Amino acid sequence: MTAQKLRSEEMNRLSPEAFRAAEKFPIYVLLQNIRSMWNVGAIFRSCDAARVEKVIITGYTATPPRKEIDKTALGATEWVAWEHVQNPLDAIASLKANGVKIAALEITTQALRYDSLSKEHFPLCLIVGNEVSGIDDDVLAMCDLALEIPQYGVKHSLNVAVSVGIALFELIKASQRIV
Amino acid sequence: MTAQKLRSEEMNRLSPEAFRAAEKFPIYVLLQNIRSMWNVGAIFRSCDAARVEKVIITGYTATPPRKEIDKTALGATEWVAWEHVQNPLDAIASLKANGVKIAALEITTQALRYDSLSKEHFPLCLIVGNEVSGIDDDVLAMCDLALEIPQYGVKHSLNVAVSVGIALFELIKASQRIV
Repeated sequence: MTAQKLRSEEMNRLSPEAFRAAEKFPIYVLLQNIRSMWNVGAIFRSCDAARVEKVIITGYTATPPRKEIDKTALGATEWVAWEHVQNPLDAIASLKANGVKIAALEITTQALRYDSLSKEHFPLCLIVGNEVSGIDDDVLAMCDLALEIPQYGVKHSLNVAVSVGIALFELIKASQRIV
Repeated sequence: MTAQKLRSEEMNRLSPEAFRAAEKFPIYVLLQNIRSMWNVGAIFRSCDAARVEKVIITGYTATPPRKEIDKTALGATEWVAWEHVQNPLDAIASLKANGVKIAALEITTQALRYDSLSKEHFPLCLIVGNEVSGIDDDVLAMCDLALEIPQYGVKHSLNVAVSVGIALFELIKASQRIV
């Protein structure tokens, strides 16, 4: 039995004001040279749903307000905290100084499964890179770990906004997992 | 330590021919009135990565080949099996006759957590509906269960392609889970 769909007003979602005041999951998302504003907006929308601490926009990734971003963000840039830091290395250094672990979402020779983390890995910043070239090597070198979503197809990668969504909803669970 | 990124050729992905011949995860994806071809293409790309049995395209959802779909599918429509069935109710009846369970990805009064299934629920067809109105009531009425991704934000829904990605990678795990 599936019963009735809930209407939006029955879902008890937060108001923008309540969202800003609410405790967040201890997750940051850093975007490095994301080319597509569609992807930036969709990532903001997922960061709303995953109630993350902050989105950090670096390199040539476009920043709000842009109508192309809002087409997929649906307003989320108004209440999800974000900042622009031109050089991702500066942003990472600042996060590390505040005790945040840095995780590349990238397939590497030493990547961990994306669903293998636990509470001790948090607060955590998930880094995603350019749609074609991925995370730059100098940024990757500053990461504490890399996370991989096992894939079974012909292509070597999921869309970046889809992969951020998959990772975020696992990280929510991991941030509460005691091992 | 994150070490080196893998190059595409180091990832041992399948060729299109090997993909077609390979055993699939026992998962079908049914699209009901998806408006955006960007979303259709991104879902195909995720269905490649998740190695699903088949994508079933219904209602006014656009079918390949369309350049707007391939912009995000990146060729996946060439090797991921798909068919077009105009009326989703016909497709569901046919799936049910073949022992496939039908799961709506939709927030309802009786939805289960998206990560609560196990092997006994498979083969399974995941249904997603229109970006604004969701799954039609007559389609929902034919579903065996509804699955919900718990969300913590202001908006009531993730992007449809992102939510399919999140659900698919959980369903892969569920299809192998013995309880």
